[in-house]
Amino acid sequence: MELYFSPLACSMATRISLYEAEATATFIEVDTKAKRIVDGGSYLEVNALGLVPALRTDNGELLTENAAILQYVADAFPHAKLAPADGLGRVRLQQWLCFIGTELHTSLFGALLDRSAPAAMKEYIIHKGRERLTYLERHLAQREQLLDAFSVADAYLTTVLNWSQTTALPLTGWPALEAYLQRNLRRPSVARALTEEIALYKRQIERRKVA
Amino acid sequence: MELYFSPLACSMATRISLYEAEATATFIEVDTKAKRIVDGGSYLEVNALGLVPALRTDNGELLTENAAILQYVADAFPHAKLAPADGLGRVRLQQWLCFIGTELHTSLFGALLDRSAPAAMKEYIIHKGRERLTYLERHLAQREQLLDAFSVADAYLTTVLNWSQTTALPLTGWPALEAYLQRNLRRPSVARALTEEIALYKRQIERRKVA
Repeated sequence: MELYFSPLACSMATRISLYEAEATATFIEVDTKAKRIVDGGSYLEVNALGLVPALRTDNGELLTENAAILQYVADAFPHAKLAPADGLGRVRLQQWLCFIGTELHTSLFGALLDRSAPAAMKEYIIHKGRERLTYLERHLAQREQLLDAFSVADAYLTTVLNWSQTTALPLTGWPALEAYLQRNLRRPSVARALTEEIALYKRQIERRKVA
Repeated sequence: MELYFSPLACSMATRISLYEAEATATFIEVDTKAKRIVDGGSYLEVNALGLVPALRTDNGELLTENAAILQYVADAFPHAKLAPADGLGRVRLQQWLCFIGTELHTSLFGALLDRSAPAAMKEYIIHKGRERLTYLERHLAQREQLLDAFSVADAYLTTVLNWSQTTALPLTGWPALEAYLQRNLRRPSVARALTEEIALYKRQIERRKVA
């Protein structure tokens, strides 16, 4: 399969999941500001929304949206046990994917990371976001991962919480979240993905400076 | 099962889905501003986030998050065919649930409907939201529903697009979306849910005036 990604964007959750599964995949870098594939070509012709991740399956289907792609990867590599196999477990996974996608990624960190978002908006969303982080703090206070074992939802949450390091909302005040993040950053799949994507991110910044 | 809902909120998608399945359920009204169950009791003790929908299964499990609850309902009543049965179809369903949840509900209409959101934020999100609606317009231009037949994703999208009637973003300019909305509003399950929830919404407004 082929993963369209942008360094350190939410697409990193899929890279982490693929590394967890020891799956082979082609990684195609996208400049989401320019809406271009870095090695050439318009990304809008791949995904008209211009967002990453997008995943091309081995059958040629193009999938979009993080929650859908992550569940697809979990199901494609069942040996990696990245999603619960039972019905209720799957519902709980979907619950966390939805919470992370709407309440943390979109409502909170996505807007904090967007330089074009107005300052008044950032104040408003930080106010709302604190409640969400406190809710998550209570859940993770007694747990190692969101569910009974590391899942694609943890790949996603780790990717999103990692953004706290560069936003106006560090995780001080939420010790269980900070501990969860540090614990998962030491996981080999996450450490490898992060090291690689930080290097690619730096190159992207350099390319933009030149352009 | 028991559905915790607030009139005309995104929980209406689950009511529509239950009506599609001709399922019996108990509907428990929540005042999401006061965080109270209308018939008495704190809603925060049910769902610490204070959000609807929440669904109590017949086994006593409490489920939250729209995408998870809608898939649970689709799977609980397979005769209603509210979700594709094949693997790729299910991924496509998750793709639309995720798109509606993040790009339309949370990023766009949720903020437009929130009176406490700053004006600068509303301008910013309408600008971004137009692209998302145009993307959806292209998809629905040649289709009756998001997938091959009415699914829980259509119950959700119909609920969300219905909010356009009371926001600063009417659907004029997106004729396929307007036609889709009007078509689904005539669907018996949707018409029944909407009639009932409009009446409950009016009573909620009256109660708030008295309080």
